[in-house]
Amino acid sequence: MDAEQFRAAGHALIDWIADYRQTIESRPVRAQVEPGEVRRAFAEQPPESPVAADILLRDLEQKIVPGITQVQHPMHYGWFPSNASLASTLGDIASSGLGTLGISWESCPAATELEEVVSDWMRQLLGLSDAWEGCIQDTASTACLTALLIARERASDYSESRGGLQGEDKPLIVYTTGEAHSSVVKAALLAGFGRDNLRLVDMDPETRAMSAEALAAQIEEDLNTGCNPAAIVASIGSTGVTAFDPLAEMVEIAAEHAIWVHVDAAMAGSAMLLPECRHLWSGVERADSISWNPHKWMGTILDCSLLYVRDVEHLVRVMSTNPSYLRSTVDDEVKQFRDWGIPLGRRFRALKLWYHLNIDGIDAIRERLRRDLDNAQWFAQTVDATDDWRVLAPVTLQTVCIRHEPEGLSGDALDRHTLAWVNAINQSGDAFMSPSQLDGRWMVRVSIGVESTTREHLEQLWALLQQRAREALT
Amino acid sequence: MDAEQFRAAGHALIDWIADYRQTIESRPVRAQVEPGEVRRAFAEQPPESPVAADILLRDLEQKIVPGITQVQHPMHYGWFPSNASLASTLGDIASSGLGTLGISWESCPAATELEEVVSDWMRQLLGLSDAWEGCIQDTASTACLTALLIARERASDYSESRGGLQGEDKPLIVYTTGEAHSSVVKAALLAGFGRDNLRLVDMDPETRAMSAEALAAQIEEDLNTGCNPAAIVASIGSTGVTAFDPLAEMVEIAAEHAIWVHVDAAMAGSAMLLPECRHLWSGVERADSISWNPHKWMGTILDCSLLYVRDVEHLVRVMSTNPSYLRSTVDDEVKQFRDWGIPLGRRFRALKLWYHLNIDGIDAIRERLRRDLDNAQWFAQTVDATDDWRVLAPVTLQTVCIRHEPEGLSGDALDRHTLAWVNAINQSGDAFMSPSQLDGRWMVRVSIGVESTTREHLEQLWALLQQRAREALT
Repeated sequence: MDAEQFRAAGHALIDWIADYRQTIESRPVRAQVEPGEVRRAFAEQPPESPVAADILLRDLEQKIVPGITQVQHPMHYGWFPSNASLASTLGDIASSGLGTLGISWESCPAATELEEVVSDWMRQLLGLSDAWEGCIQDTASTACLTALLIARERASDYSESRGGLQGEDKPLIVYTTGEAHSSVVKAALLAGFGRDNLRLVDMDPETRAMSAEALAAQIEEDLNTGCNPAAIVASIGSTGVTAFDPLAEMVEIAAEHAIWVHVDAAMAGSAMLLPECRHLWSGVERADSISWNPHKWMGTILDCSLLYVRDVEHLVRVMSTNPSYLRSTVDDEVKQFRDWGIPLGRRFRALKLWYHLNIDGIDAIRERLRRDLDNAQWFAQTVDATDDWRVLAPVTLQTVCIRHEPEGLSGDALDRHTLAWVNAINQSGDAFMSPSQLDGRWMVRVSIGVESTTREHLEQLWALLQQRAREALT
Repeated sequence: MDAEQFRAAGHALIDWIADYRQTIESRPVRAQVEPGEVRRAFAEQPPESPVAADILLRDLEQKIVPGITQVQHPMHYGWFPSNASLASTLGDIASSGLGTLGISWESCPAATELEEVVSDWMRQLLGLSDAWEGCIQDTASTACLTALLIARERASDYSESRGGLQGEDKPLIVYTTGEAHSSVVKAALLAGFGRDNLRLVDMDPETRAMSAEALAAQIEEDLNTGCNPAAIVASIGSTGVTAFDPLAEMVEIAAEHAIWVHVDAAMAGSAMLLPECRHLWSGVERADSISWNPHKWMGTILDCSLLYVRDVEHLVRVMSTNPSYLRSTVDDEVKQFRDWGIPLGRRFRALKLWYHLNIDGIDAIRERLRRDLDNAQWFAQTVDATDDWRVLAPVTLQTVCIRHEPEGLSGDALDRHTLAWVNAINQSGDAFMSPSQLDGRWMVRVSIGVESTTREHLEQLWALLQQRAREALT
């Protein structure tokens, strides 16, 4: 494909994207396809001869789009808001168009330095001190793994340069809670700590936040039995019920024993753009690493996860490689972001943040977040004020955990009822929510915060919920 | 930004991208900026009020582009070809436009299933048997780390579910050579094996391929001293001199001791699209995992690295998480690619491969690869036939390692001369090559294979090399 063919096909694609984004509301929220249906729409063998771009555009519309769960749909309340704002989409397109290679500063100085600029802008917008330096990673899963790897190396005095984790006498221990995101457990296992050395610390039964006393006691016990407490992962806005671990107390305890504290604020980090929310991570300045995803509620298109650390030298020492073919004459004067994470090659992801912040502007972004906080409060109060409906956890941000509990239903029967009405709604395509478990029982998470979701959409959702729950009873 | 604003700005951006790609040859290859120069072109504080998209386009042109090393430039011979074909760029743009969320099959069935389809197409095009199943990862670094993690868990009988690597009695050992890519060492260290347990096996001094005899002897010695040989990483086309480890012999040795074999064909995997090159990885069907990057020579825009494994069940067992909020009613019938790698959230990367294969067609891609192989042979013969110039390693694919060795220059003086002429060329912006070390001495890697590089460009390069090398002597 030459540049003129690209130009023509690109214009057609842009028009198609604009139309697609404009008409999302007319599509079902959850993809209506069966397993294997999309796959069977494509040939099993690779194409033998070239196909024109307009045929692919037709296939996009007819074969791909029906297989997409529309997370940009205003009636999407599943998982978390995964806003792909059009401003950031434009920046992502610019990144593709430039076709840069990010393996070193020299391979694309602009990609490195704009990433420094926007990471620092975001630091300021979050109210973090300039002790923090950041970079963009793909996801909070990867950022958390990176954090646990550098925590492992600090606690083991760089065991990677000797016998590795297998050369350690004292077992290294990681602390978190049962509310932590699945990626935390995954990261601990992949980093080699082992499940036996992962402590799920007790929580406050009401808020589901970590109990600081339980943490202190657990560390004490581990020290007494010859273990090496290495890392604490604090959930700042847990996935299940948006619980906030007591960070200020945790960093205090960690400091006594020089334990690495990683703050997982994947979803709730966006809230820290609002000064009135920052009390929720009070103590953050004494943590060691923070990750959060602009690609969630804030709306910078996936993948865009920010990782901040205070001790850059330590991070780089653990993660760096410096082979001769990647050296240049200016290595001492520049950042090499390959040494800040796992991958060597990196896309020019700074552009999507740069476009997003410049075009939409931080005021509009903040206003939208506040709208969502208001909507969540309204929704929770409405649900709570209605007979047989319950809000199951404090609504601190934009997620409301609910259950319809009609008289006489409990235990497994209640579980069946919950799954019946939520699956009925999800299958209908009218709205989408995530069923989730709380204390072993099913509930429904209503995660509010799609860019296009207004109060009217929530009113619509509430009517739908009541109707489907009634229907499920009969 | 609303859809109509996006449409207008998108059209302008597409035109700008088409113009940019058309005029790349008129730009310097290596970015001509000093460290910090791009950063200083941007404000230290985040923008307070919104900025129009056309202002950003102007900034792209004036502030960003001068900071890009033009790897799409026909005179780029650095590192490796990092082709961002316009067909795949279009697919990447479609992916951004769709704004999908890939955290589970349910969140975007089309992203999962098209990835299955194109991974299988690529398997067929590489001539691999259907024992292999693949997925798209960001880079070969991440794929190699994933491979070493699953190798670690196989060798330790799933130590992650117990005391982790630190609970192992026998040290787990990883084998590779000093020619292996830096990401292999990095992966071994991050996976917790430790540098003491990384064996850099002796190589054939001529080809710099691993010595199979040395490998067998090393494994024997490790077994005798109570170690647990866990993984062998074979370089199929090393970065330095495109060395090919003797895979057929290595898998034979590995099979005797049930050692995991990972094939790192990051760059050279593209060559396996050509049946006449496949003898270079003879034995591959008995390996356990393979990674290679369509985002290099083949030209599917970064990031697009394919990871193939034979034992999917094992991969998923090591990498999977299955929290309640990610479950759906069809989990038994679908693939969950989150369980095939580190990140949970994934972009819709299958689209760029799908666009690339459909629009350009495999025949044209193969023809271009063969053109590059011919060009490399021509270039190597031309250099080799010239007094004072040497080709330092066999030219198996498209990389030619050269040195200008005028009479009377050796040792450090020769190093200074080499760096002088290559840096002079790189700084001029006329062409770009990677200086690299071989046996502790500097040489220059001429990596041929940018989409737009023709024989004429190589003739131009050869004239430039001779001129600059002469000048460096005076």
